[in-house]
Amino acid sequence: MPNQSRVIIESIYPQIEGGLHPISCIQNEIISVEADILSDGHDVMAANLCFKHEKESVWRQVRMTPIVNDRWMATMQLEKQGFYEYKIEGWIDYALNWQHGIERKIEDGQKVTSELLEGIEYIDAIFSKCTEEERVYLERLKEYFHQADQYEKAIKEAVSHRLHHIFSQFPEKFLVNESAPLKAYCDREKARFSTWYEFFPRSASQTPGQHGTFKDCELLLPRVAKMGFDVLYFPPVHPIGEVNRKGKNNTTTAQEGDVGSCWGIGSQYGGHKELHPQLGSVEDFKSLVQKAKELGIEIAMDFALQAAPDHPWVKQHPKWFKWRPDGTVQYAENPPKKYQDILPIYFESEDWKNLWDEMLSTALYWVEECDIQVFRVDNPHTKPFYFWGWLIAEIKKKHPNVLFLSEAFTRPKIMHQLAKQGFTQSYTYFTWRNDKQELMEYVNELTQTDQRYFFRPNFWPNTPDINPWALQGNMESVYLQKYFLAATLSSNTGIYGPVFEYMQGAALPGKEEYLDSEKFQIRHWDWNIENKLTTLITKINQFRRENKALQQTNNIKFLNIENDKLLGYYKYDQHRENEVICVVSLDPYYSQKGMIQLPLAELGIPQGHQLKVQDLITNSSYIWNKEWNYIELHPVLPFHLFKIHK
Amino acid sequence: MPNQSRVIIESIYPQIEGGLHPISCIQNEIISVEADILSDGHDVMAANLCFKHEKESVWRQVRMTPIVNDRWMATMQLEKQGFYEYKIEGWIDYALNWQHGIERKIEDGQKVTSELLEGIEYIDAIFSKCTEEERVYLERLKEYFHQADQYEKAIKEAVSHRLHHIFSQFPEKFLVNESAPLKAYCDREKARFSTWYEFFPRSASQTPGQHGTFKDCELLLPRVAKMGFDVLYFPPVHPIGEVNRKGKNNTTTAQEGDVGSCWGIGSQYGGHKELHPQLGSVEDFKSLVQKAKELGIEIAMDFALQAAPDHPWVKQHPKWFKWRPDGTVQYAENPPKKYQDILPIYFESEDWKNLWDEMLSTALYWVEECDIQVFRVDNPHTKPFYFWGWLIAEIKKKHPNVLFLSEAFTRPKIMHQLAKQGFTQSYTYFTWRNDKQELMEYVNELTQTDQRYFFRPNFWPNTPDINPWALQGNMESVYLQKYFLAATLSSNTGIYGPVFEYMQGAALPGKEEYLDSEKFQIRHWDWNIENKLTTLITKINQFRRENKALQQTNNIKFLNIENDKLLGYYKYDQHRENEVICVVSLDPYYSQKGMIQLPLAELGIPQGHQLKVQDLITNSSYIWNKEWNYIELHPVLPFHLFKIHK
Repeated sequence: MPNQSRVIIESIYPQIEGGLHPISCIQNEIISVEADILSDGHDVMAANLCFKHEKESVWRQVRMTPIVNDRWMATMQLEKQGFYEYKIEGWIDYALNWQHGIERKIEDGQKVTSELLEGIEYIDAIFSKCTEEERVYLERLKEYFHQADQYEKAIKEAVSHRLHHIFSQFPEKFLVNESAPLKAYCDREKARFSTWYEFFPRSASQTPGQHGTFKDCELLLPRVAKMGFDVLYFPPVHPIGEVNRKGKNNTTTAQEGDVGSCWGIGSQYGGHKELHPQLGSVEDFKSLVQKAKELGIEIAMDFALQAAPDHPWVKQHPKWFKWRPDGTVQYAENPPKKYQDILPIYFESEDWKNLWDEMLSTALYWVEECDIQVFRVDNPHTKPFYFWGWLIAEIKKKHPNVLFLSEAFTRPKIMHQLAKQGFTQSYTYFTWRNDKQELMEYVNELTQTDQRYFFRPNFWPNTPDINPWALQGNMESVYLQKYFLAATLSSNTGIYGPVFEYMQGAALPGKEEYLDSEKFQIRHWDWNIENKLTTLITKINQFRRENKALQQTNNIKFLNIENDKLLGYYKYDQHRENEVICVVSLDPYYSQKGMIQLPLAELGIPQGHQLKVQDLITNSSYIWNKEWNYIELHPVLPFHLFKIHK
Repeated sequence: MPNQSRVIIESIYPQIEGGLHPISCIQNEIISVEADILSDGHDVMAANLCFKHEKESVWRQVRMTPIVNDRWMATMQLEKQGFYEYKIEGWIDYALNWQHGIERKIEDGQKVTSELLEGIEYIDAIFSKCTEEERVYLERLKEYFHQADQYEKAIKEAVSHRLHHIFSQFPEKFLVNESAPLKAYCDREKARFSTWYEFFPRSASQTPGQHGTFKDCELLLPRVAKMGFDVLYFPPVHPIGEVNRKGKNNTTTAQEGDVGSCWGIGSQYGGHKELHPQLGSVEDFKSLVQKAKELGIEIAMDFALQAAPDHPWVKQHPKWFKWRPDGTVQYAENPPKKYQDILPIYFESEDWKNLWDEMLSTALYWVEECDIQVFRVDNPHTKPFYFWGWLIAEIKKKHPNVLFLSEAFTRPKIMHQLAKQGFTQSYTYFTWRNDKQELMEYVNELTQTDQRYFFRPNFWPNTPDINPWALQGNMESVYLQKYFLAATLSSNTGIYGPVFEYMQGAALPGKEEYLDSEKFQIRHWDWNIENKLTTLITKINQFRRENKALQQTNNIKFLNIENDKLLGYYKYDQHRENEVICVVSLDPYYSQKGMIQLPLAELGIPQGHQLKVQDLITNSSYIWNKEWNYIELHPVLPFHLFKIHK
C-alpha cells in the first residue's frame, strides 16, 4: 500500500542495531535525539519527538527544531525505570506554510487577496481548539481577511507572530508520517554512579586462622561505608564443592583444611540457592544485607552459573550437563588451563527451557528472599547471549531496581553484545591501559562513539583474577594514580579491597595473578589499616559524592598538555552546573610539569576570563586568567582534582 | 519466545537505513558483505552469506571467513536484473569444534580415548551425505577410533585435513541463527556506465530559422554516435502550452512565433502522452528511437510532471490541481521567481490514487509504445518521495531495463532520498566543484562512504539550466579540463552538447544561466563542427569504452601530488585487470609541474619496480621506476590519461 505522506524520517540517532536493542539511559538524564526529516518541495515542516514508558498509553511530545542540512533535534528526559519507546512524527504544516508563503509574496509586492481568503480556511480548522481570547482575535482577523477596505490591517496580521504562535500550537497533522518506534531502557541512578568494594567474606575474621562469617562481615561495614563505597561485592557465598576441590595457589589436589575455590559451587550442602555453611545462616546473610542498607551500601552477589561435580543439579538434572561417551561430564577446560572443580552448564540441552527457568528462579530467590539488588555475573560470555537477554528482562519486569555487572574480560564485541542484551555495567580494559595515549583513546571510544548509548563501563584497577603488571611493583604512587584515574574517568569504579589498600602486588611468577590468591585460600587482613592510600581513596570518594560532574562518564573532554606523562580532562554534569578539571601524572618516579589548555568553548568563557580552580584534595586554589596554565605534579601526590569557580 | 541459538549476527555492511532501502548493484558486480558474527565461549563457528533473486526460491550460499575482531566477510555476485535478498546465517560447527578440541588436548599431551568415541557420533551424522570414497575412509576412521591398539593412527586421522574437509562440506547447522534479509537492487550495466548527450530537437534543423523535427534529429545520430555518446537525452517533446507561454530569455509574454518553454507541457494538441506537432508524428519518433538503437544510442525522454494551464488534465481532472478560493490554480512560484506557464500537480489530492496511476500509465506508454528505456526526470524533488519509490518499482517490475536519472540540484539529503527511492542515477554538485580539494572531498564522499551503495552520480559540466561561472569565460582549456574530469572521475557523464562544443558561455548578466537559452527559443547550430574540443571528447569517450577502469566510479584513490593545481587519481576495474592513472591540471593559464606518488600497495608492486605508463591521448609512454615521478601539464593539453602496464 503506497504512502501518500510527503515527509521522510531517517537516520535517527541514537539507535542501536536499527532499534533491535534499547539505548541505555538513567532516570532524569537528558537525551538528545536527532533525525533527518525532509519533504519534497519547499513547504514548512514540523516534527515531534514522541516517547512513552512501557506502562503508559499516551505519547509525550516534544517539538523538534532543525539544526542544519535537514537534520532535526529535540531532547527527552525519561523519568521512570523500565522500557520506553521513542519515535518521531513529521508533517507539512500547511497553516504555517500559508503564512510563510504570503509573507514572501507581500515582500515581493504582490497583491494577496486570494491568499487571505485561503487563510480563513486555516483559521476555521483550528478555531475550536483555541482559547476564548484567541477566538476573539481570530474572528477579527477573518473580518480583515474578507474586507477589501481592511487590506492593510489584514496583511499586517496575516504575518503576525501572534497568528504564527496560534498555528504552531494546534498543528493540523495532515498526512503525518512517523518512524518505527525505537527502544530505550531507563535505569536508576546507581547504574551510572556506583563505587564498589570487593572482599572475600571468608577472610573477614579478625582472628588469624579463623574462617570468616557473615557476622564478621557486618563488623566491617562501617569501615567500607566510611571509605565511601556504596556497593559491597562478595565472591560466591554458596556451598563449595568437595569433589576435585582445588588447593592453595590453584593446585589440583586440595589438602586437609583447604577451602577450595568459591566459584566451584555446589556440594552435599546444596547449590545456588544455599549458603556455604561456614559463612553462616540465611538469617545471618539477610541481617548483613539490611545492616549494609542502613549504611547506604548495597550487597552485590556473584551470579556464577557453573557447578562443582557434587552440585545437586548433576544428579537431579543430568540433562543440563554434556555427558561424554565414557559416562563422565567434561570439566571446564581451555588447554592447557583446566578447571577440574567446575562442570560447565550444557545450554544446548533439550531440557533448556527448564534449565533457563531454574537459573531465573535462582536469581529471583536472592532478590525476593534476601533483598539483593545487584549481581556481578561471573563469566557471562560463556553462556548464550540470548539467555542473558531473556533472564535480565524477566527479572527487570518484576524488579527494575536490579543491576547486573558483566565480568567479561574478553573480545570487545562480546562485551558489547552482553551490554546490548541488558547488562547494566561491564568490566573494561581499563585495568591494562597505562599510557596517556591509550587511556585517551580508550575513554574516547567508550564515551564519544555509539558505545556511550549501550555500554556502561566500570573501571577496576584490580580484581582477584587480575593483578596487573603495573601494580606488581607495589609503588604507592602507582596505586594512587590508578585509583584516581578509575574513580574520576569513570563514574562506576571498584577495587578488590584489602590487597589493593595494602599495596600487596606479590604475583605468581610471570603472571598477572596474585600469589596466595584468596580465590583458593583464606587470608588474614588487618581490617583497621589506615594509610595515605586509604585516606586519599576516602577523599576521592567523598568528592565523587559531592560533584555531579564525577557521577557520569560520558561528558568528558581531554585537554591539551604538551607532556606525555600528564593527562588532563574536563568533566561536567548535564546542566554544566558542576565542572571539574582532573590532572594526573602518569610518572611514578619523577615530577612532571607542563602547560594545560583550558576548554574555553566548553566553559563558555572568553580568552582572558579569570577562573578560580580549587584543588579539592589539598584545598589550595589557583587563579587562572590565561588559556594555557602551568601544572606541576610529583609522585608524592600525583593528581589535581580542580573544581571550577567561574 | 526465547531463542536458543548461541550465534549473534549484527552490523551487516552494506545496508541502507536498516534494510529499508536496497543497496544498488550492477549485474556481475562483486559485492563484499561483512558482519559481526559471534558466539559465547570459544567454539568453532561457521557462517554463510545467502542471497537469492526475487524470482528464485533457493538461497545461494557462500561460506564467510573471519577477518579480524569477530568481523566476517564474503562476496556475492548478482547476475540478474531486479531485486535480490541477502542475509547471513551462522552456527556453531560442532564437528569442527570437536576436531579443534581434540587437537589442543593431543598437543597438551592428554589421552583422548573418550573424545575419539565422541568423534564417531559426528562421523555418523554426516555419513549418508558423503561420497563412496569418503565413506570408505570414514569407516576406517571409526575402526581406529574404537580400537585401543589403533590409537596412534586414530589421533593422526582425527586431526587430519581430510576429515576437516569432509566436516566443512557438510555442516550440521544445529541451532543456526540468521539475520533478517536485506535488499539489493541489481541494474544493467548502463546504469553504471553511460555517456550522455543532450540537445533540443527543435534546434536540430540544418536550415536556419526552421523548427527542427524528429527527422532532423535522425540525421544527427551518426555524429552523436561517432563522438562516443550512448544516451541521447531530449528535453520534453510534448505539446507546449499556449496559455501564459514564455517568451525569449524567460520573458513573461510570448511574442508571435515564440516557441515557449518545452517544460510547459500540454495544450489543445494533448498532454504527456502526445508529441509536439511541429516535431513530427509518433511514427517519426519511433523511427528515431529505432535508428538510434541501431547506432548503440538509447533515447532518453524527459519525464516532467507538471502542466501548462491549457493541459487537458486541468479540465479532465480538476482534483489534481489545487484551486484557490478565487477559482484559479496557483502557478508554480518561488518568489521572486515565477513560472506562470506551469501549474504544479497537487499530490495531496483526495484523488491521488488515480493521479498516481495516470503518471505510471504515462511512463509505461512511452516504454511500451515507443521502446523508451531511459528517463531523465525533471524536478523530482518537488514531488513526493514515496510516489517515486512506487512508480519506479512498478515500472521495473515489468521493465527492469528502464533507468531513471534524477534532475535534483538541491539539498544533499533530498538527492540521497531520491536515490534511495530507486532513481538509477543522479545529477550532482560536480558542476560547481572547481578546486583540487573540493573535487577530492566530493568524490571521496560519493565513493568512500555509504553513498556508494545507493547514490550513483552522473557528472555534467553544464546543462540548459546551468551555465557555470567557470565556463562563462569561454576558455578552451577549462572546457577540456571539465570534460576530462567529468568523464574520468565518473563513469556516468553527460554534456548539454552544442553550446558546450562551441564553448559558448554567454550568460544572462550575473547569473549562471545561458543567454538566449534554448529553453525559450530555437537556436541554430553548425552540426558539422569539428574542433580540438570535439576531437578530445571523442578520444576520451573512446578510451572510456576501452578501459573498464573508467566504466565504474567507486574504485578510485587520489594520489599525492605536491601541487594544488594538479589533481591525480588511480582507478581500476574490480579484477584489477585494467588500471589507469589520470592527471589533470586545473590551471587554465600556466603550465604546472610536480611529483606524483604511485599507489604501490594498490598496484601490488614493490619500490623500484619498473612500470610503463602509456598516455592514451598522445600515445606517448614513460618508464617509471620510482615511487615519485615527474609530471608537467600545460593548458594546451591539460591532462594525462595513463594506462598502466606492469
